[in-house]
Amino acid sequence: MRDLAAQPKLCAVNTATFGFQAPLSEVIEEIARAGFGGVGPWRREIEGQDVKTIGRQIRDAGLSVTGFCRSPYLPANSRAAFVTAIESNYRALDEAAALHADSYVIVSGSLPEGSKDLSAARAQVAEGVALLCAYAAERDIKIALEPLHPVYAVDRSCINLLSQALDICAEINAPNLGVCIDVYHTWWDPNLARDIARAGREKRIISYHVSDWLSPTIDVLNDRGMMGDGVIDLKSFRHLMENAGYDGLVEVELFSAENWWKKPIAETLGVLKERFATVV
Amino acid sequence: MRDLAAQPKLCAVNTATFGFQAPLSEVIEEIARAGFGGVGPWRREIEGQDVKTIGRQIRDAGLSVTGFCRSPYLPANSRAAFVTAIESNYRALDEAAALHADSYVIVSGSLPEGSKDLSAARAQVAEGVALLCAYAAERDIKIALEPLHPVYAVDRSCINLLSQALDICAEINAPNLGVCIDVYHTWWDPNLARDIARAGREKRIISYHVSDWLSPTIDVLNDRGMMGDGVIDLKSFRHLMENAGYDGLVEVELFSAENWWKKPIAETLGVLKERFATVV
Repeated sequence: MRDLAAQPKLCAVNTATFGFQAPLSEVIEEIARAGFGGVGPWRREIEGQDVKTIGRQIRDAGLSVTGFCRSPYLPANSRAAFVTAIESNYRALDEAAALHADSYVIVSGSLPEGSKDLSAARAQVAEGVALLCAYAAERDIKIALEPLHPVYAVDRSCINLLSQALDICAEINAPNLGVCIDVYHTWWDPNLARDIARAGREKRIISYHVSDWLSPTIDVLNDRGMMGDGVIDLKSFRHLMENAGYDGLVEVELFSAENWWKKPIAETLGVLKERFATVV
Repeated sequence: MRDLAAQPKLCAVNTATFGFQAPLSEVIEEIARAGFGGVGPWRREIEGQDVKTIGRQIRDAGLSVTGFCRSPYLPANSRAAFVTAIESNYRALDEAAALHADSYVIVSGSLPEGSKDLSAARAQVAEGVALLCAYAAERDIKIALEPLHPVYAVDRSCINLLSQALDICAEINAPNLGVCIDVYHTWWDPNLARDIARAGREKRIISYHVSDWLSPTIDVLNDRGMMGDGVIDLKSFRHLMENAGYDGLVEVELFSAENWWKKPIAETLGVLKERFATVV
């Protein structure tokens, strides 16, 4: 396994970790000052700003843009609404290109209002991902399809298993398509070892997110734990990832409304750096 | 598909649906009076009572006992604690036998205190289930292993996929071992159709629980919905079950602390009967 303690540059920080309470430019400077290697920004942070300028600021700070978060949801109640969702994703991909993002993270969405048809939603996702792959390929961006924990199957994502995401990748078979593997969403999966190995074999691992699952969890959406504070065996997880050939950045993404979001950015980054070096 | 509206006797009611707010003897009478065919009682309800007498009351009321809920958790931190857990399950199986229960529902438990080793917990569950199958077979009771939604993977169950439960059944290969398939725990699974068909082919379907997944959900533990109030396509689910050969009772199990548990039992049973006839 790689020696993360000696290489803080292997750590990227997703800006959701700070709850969007400071301007992106400030967050970028803090992440770079702490010695990390990458940043995963969100679309909401660049709204109304000049994207190329932000991209330049990130590169000047010595950071790479791991993944741009995240896609507007794909499943829709009508063909017109689906087309609108695709168009909206094209605009987000234009922004990802302007940022020189390595990848664009797809959180698929799930049942449109009033629907109970998960299969239909999943078919729309597969169709939409194929369209986005083609558009992204022309802009040299990878598409990272992220399976989300089944607790989000109603609204946030109808892609809930790593094997399911890999099946979609195999079906579309675009060279710029792969998966984002997040410990929080996948740690419980009894087929985890098998499917991470498959993802490596099929050259589909684009990104790797870490945090921890707290026990008890107050809120499955915004009560993620700092690495080491929960029940996930993070070192075994990384062992699977690196055995599968993953050698990219490890991105920390914490949604923690009642805890970490309330702390100063520098304090969170300090703890994060220490945990990255010791428990990930 | 079977005509449920014409056959309320095909409906069983799990007593958790009433939040354990009335004595079991009263609940039994209400369920029978409403015209249903079965009851799924919990161990906590018979504590300190004469189990044979309760069993006789249930049969006299014209009800069958579908499943007895539920097993003490299996994974433990030490061999001694594991043995204690097995012994505790043997006592529960004695009670199930005294009740003439058709099956004993195993909710496996998961990580013991301080552990992050899901694989070890899963191995303990497989070992424990094999022991319980042997003990139950001598008492003519079926063992229904219930996969629980992955959101409970920390503490309540390390068995989180139907395919995983079926793999354990195949490995142990006891004739009295099968699965309890609950819509709430499995509806999101992209392999649902495949795995229900497999469960039928392998003669492993012991019981079938219904409720609904509300959107939004306030609490993943105690905010289950009445059938028809949520997002699960219950009719398609039943279609899969009956195509797989299931012809037993359909058991309603609602954990609903803030809603149904606060209503009079007769009112809940009235709504339940109507929904059973129309949306399940």
